[in-house]
Amino acid sequence: MDGYALKGADIAGASADSPRRLPVIGIVAAGQLPERAVESGTAMRIMTGAPVPDGADTVVPFEETDEVKRKQEGRPLDEVAVFSEMAVGSNVRPAGEDIRQGELVLEAGTVVRAAEVGVLASLGLDRVRVVRRPVVSVLATGDELESAGAALSGGKIYDSNSFSVAASVVASGGIPRLLGIARDNLDDLNAKLAATAGSDLVITSAGVSKGDYDIVKDVLEQRGKMNFWSVRMRPAKPLAFGHLRDDGGRDVPLLGLPGNPVSAMVAFEMFARPAIRCMLGRPVRPRPSVDGVLTGPIRNYDGRRVYARVEVEKRDGVYYATPTGPQGSNILTSMSRANGLAICPEDLTAKQAGEQVRIIMLDWNEEVDL
Amino acid sequence: MDGYALKGADIAGASADSPRRLPVIGIVAAGQLPERAVESGTAMRIMTGAPVPDGADTVVPFEETDEVKRKQEGRPLDEVAVFSEMAVGSNVRPAGEDIRQGELVLEAGTVVRAAEVGVLASLGLDRVRVVRRPVVSVLATGDELESAGAALSGGKIYDSNSFSVAASVVASGGIPRLLGIARDNLDDLNAKLAATAGSDLVITSAGVSKGDYDIVKDVLEQRGKMNFWSVRMRPAKPLAFGHLRDDGGRDVPLLGLPGNPVSAMVAFEMFARPAIRCMLGRPVRPRPSVDGVLTGPIRNYDGRRVYARVEVEKRDGVYYATPTGPQGSNILTSMSRANGLAICPEDLTAKQAGEQVRIIMLDWNEEVDL
Repeated sequence: MDGYALKGADIAGASADSPRRLPVIGIVAAGQLPERAVESGTAMRIMTGAPVPDGADTVVPFEETDEVKRKQEGRPLDEVAVFSEMAVGSNVRPAGEDIRQGELVLEAGTVVRAAEVGVLASLGLDRVRVVRRPVVSVLATGDELESAGAALSGGKIYDSNSFSVAASVVASGGIPRLLGIARDNLDDLNAKLAATAGSDLVITSAGVSKGDYDIVKDVLEQRGKMNFWSVRMRPAKPLAFGHLRDDGGRDVPLLGLPGNPVSAMVAFEMFARPAIRCMLGRPVRPRPSVDGVLTGPIRNYDGRRVYARVEVEKRDGVYYATPTGPQGSNILTSMSRANGLAICPEDLTAKQAGEQVRIIMLDWNEEVDL
Repeated sequence: MDGYALKGADIAGASADSPRRLPVIGIVAAGQLPERAVESGTAMRIMTGAPVPDGADTVVPFEETDEVKRKQEGRPLDEVAVFSEMAVGSNVRPAGEDIRQGELVLEAGTVVRAAEVGVLASLGLDRVRVVRRPVVSVLATGDELESAGAALSGGKIYDSNSFSVAASVVASGGIPRLLGIARDNLDDLNAKLAATAGSDLVITSAGVSKGDYDIVKDVLEQRGKMNFWSVRMRPAKPLAFGHLRDDGGRDVPLLGLPGNPVSAMVAFEMFARPAIRCMLGRPVRPRPSVDGVLTGPIRNYDGRRVYARVEVEKRDGVYYATPTGPQGSNILTSMSRANGLAICPEDLTAKQAGEQVRIIMLDWNEEVDL
């Protein structure tokens, strides 16, 4: 506070009618050290951010003194009249008030957000040890794929998985390394996988189903280990997880996402995101979820757990989940319109409009207004 | 689906006991164009991702045929036996099922998240017009400030605002430009402000109170316009907003945050974050907020709206807000422990433990578990 540093006892009983007049023995600005101590019956002019001089225990703001009047009248500032008493300690921040010497400031595992950045800077720390962000290699597979920006020839479609997965890696806290498109043969796939060296996780898409060209599974059997394959969920049943032995003899986890674009995103959500957050040292917990009312049916016909894309709105305190159109695993626009995934359990054949559902919230922000 | 493309009508009534045998007239893999059409009574071998040949309307997966047995027995694949009938259209994705020609795919103003990145890539778009991220110049002011990493001499403290603000800019979607520390004189402040050229927003901290060295206000009066100053809130009362005329004659908005570290962060939250999101073309809406029960008091003593740092937890469906310790605007660690700001309205002198409060959620994620 800009004002006068003094001993609080010296202004006990001060008022506008009965001001206390004190000689001003100096000035201390921010960034300076006081040149002397404040003794009883004296005051030192002080600016916000300046260290409080020895002897002083209270700062009286200019507004409670004749400072402004004195300046206006051109009178010297060698004396000040104080118009009100103040509690001892007013407008003084004791050293160590926020952080005491030896105190644990941030526990290991703390996420470094803006406030933590500020706390670290306030301690003069311009670098700290952190869990580094995992590097995630992202590789699409398929002879039919072409990259965005290139011309599309007959029989081809554009690769969307590389980019939706890479964006999801960023959103999950990882660093994506885009490896492009591997063609449906072991030579090309092995060549592309060589570029995963040093990655913490490899994510492929497609090549994990049951056909002649489903070679991600083949390469895992050849160069690593398949841990599991096929999950009882819709979309994203043909998901594979294994470990790839790299040239240095290190086992790198590999998540083989299905090729359908929605399947790839839902499988990422359920498997890759928790893995990346675990690698970040964060506790593995599910996304926030809410109970809501379905406004349209979710069908289930083969005993899998269904994650239906829904738009969630809150009206009068109730969450409503509206399926965002056809639920085919190729319909990526309905993923774009969704902010949640509503669950139809594996032991039900449907959830009907009006029924309660559990909804995993993919987004929770201003736009959603929940 | 890997299987056989054919006319669905040709396998009506097929079963394991009464399979339909069809000559295989070719094969089409992903990325290829079929060499011929499928005529009634024939089938074409097809791989996932391949275009469906003309004439075919249904794909029968390998599992519903003698494919595997035939391969195991080394028999030629020039004929296939189909063991089950299938609905016409099974396992075929019609072209344009997701996006029709001429359809509006993403409205202007849509946030480009992972799903939108995927949708754009699926259309072959490797670049789109977006609202660019605003560039936000960040400048601390004060003779008492030293930068993290440097040694601290007498009377100095470390600058934390530059870094907590810059991190908040990133979290809000902007691009921070760190300009360092301006000393408490107009020459230095003007020199530092010259580096803000091209910024969309300038954020300073400190220099907006009532003292001799509160020069951000002075510079605004000299080189621009002060729009308002001082807000009835706690913390962050001495907040200034104005426009700075740059050398090109352009008026750049300037938000002068208070110098106290918590005040700076809360003022950022209430004023800078909405401004940045507005510049991003996003609707200006408050953060998600919840009603909860206070577990400790929030005091109010001068008719301002109080934003108290609290830790929010949900137990048995009820949100509880616990103040994170002393609420002095210098206590940055209590901001670090907070995930919400509980409001004590300006017309109350306190909110007591057990009372209902409105809580602005600063964080809403797995760790919070709400």
